[in-house]
Amino acid sequence: MRHLLVVAHGSRREASNEEVRQLAADLIPRAAGRFDGVSCAFLEIAAPSIPDGIEAAVQAGAREVVVMPYFLSAGRHVAEDIPREVAGKQAEYPQVRMHITHYLGLAPGVPDILLELAGG
Amino acid sequence: MRHLLVVAHGSRREASNEEVRQLAADLIPRAAGRFDGVSCAFLEIAAPSIPDGIEAAVQAGAREVVVMPYFLSAGRHVAEDIPREVAGKQAEYPQVRMHITHYLGLAPGVPDILLELAGG
Repeated sequence: MRHLLVVAHGSRREASNEEVRQLAADLIPRAAGRFDGVSCAFLEIAAPSIPDGIEAAVQAGAREVVVMPYFLSAGRHVAEDIPREVAGKQAEYPQVRMHITHYLGLAPGVPDILLELAGG
Repeated sequence: MRHLLVVAHGSRREASNEEVRQLAADLIPRAAGRFDGVSCAFLEIAAPSIPDGIEAAVQAGAREVVVMPYFLSAGRHVAEDIPREVAGKQAEYPQVRMHITHYLGLAPGVPDILLELAGG
């Protein structure tokens, strides 16, 4: 069982958190055959937290959790805070493989998406 | 002359601002034939500001400026702050066509990029 956890910052504006939840839901059918589950978690403010998101995935049977930072730049959150949260759960569940991907801003497809969005 | 202005929030971490500048530079060859110029601007903290970014494009001969919010969610910055800054320059240059695209988080290609990044 392989699980994808999309991690966003979390906002005081609930509509922004809801957008992230919707994104995770949209990914479920697209991820079929590659991930058995997709969910989201938030570093701050919104729920679930990263530990709670990982916990739910493990309880659902995940043996691999791929954590993806839904961030555009590599600030402290990406470089330190997310790895620390994941490491805490990794220590708790050493038998589950956990790893963190590049953050969204580094995805090679971003420039093409921007040009498409620009109607260029 | 058609110009694409990628607008990011701006960070106290200069490496994050530099990433955005690099992204704009990377877009220049890809945008050939669609945009005559690509540059970036920042809502806060970093330079150039949005008005300065638009000003430079107009001075370089742009008759259309497409402003793209490099943001993942539609908070106040996207909904109010960027439009206000653009409207100020639009009033100053009524002969230049200025418009704002959807923000990156709404781009239809985002889910596919995320799955690719996840190695799924």
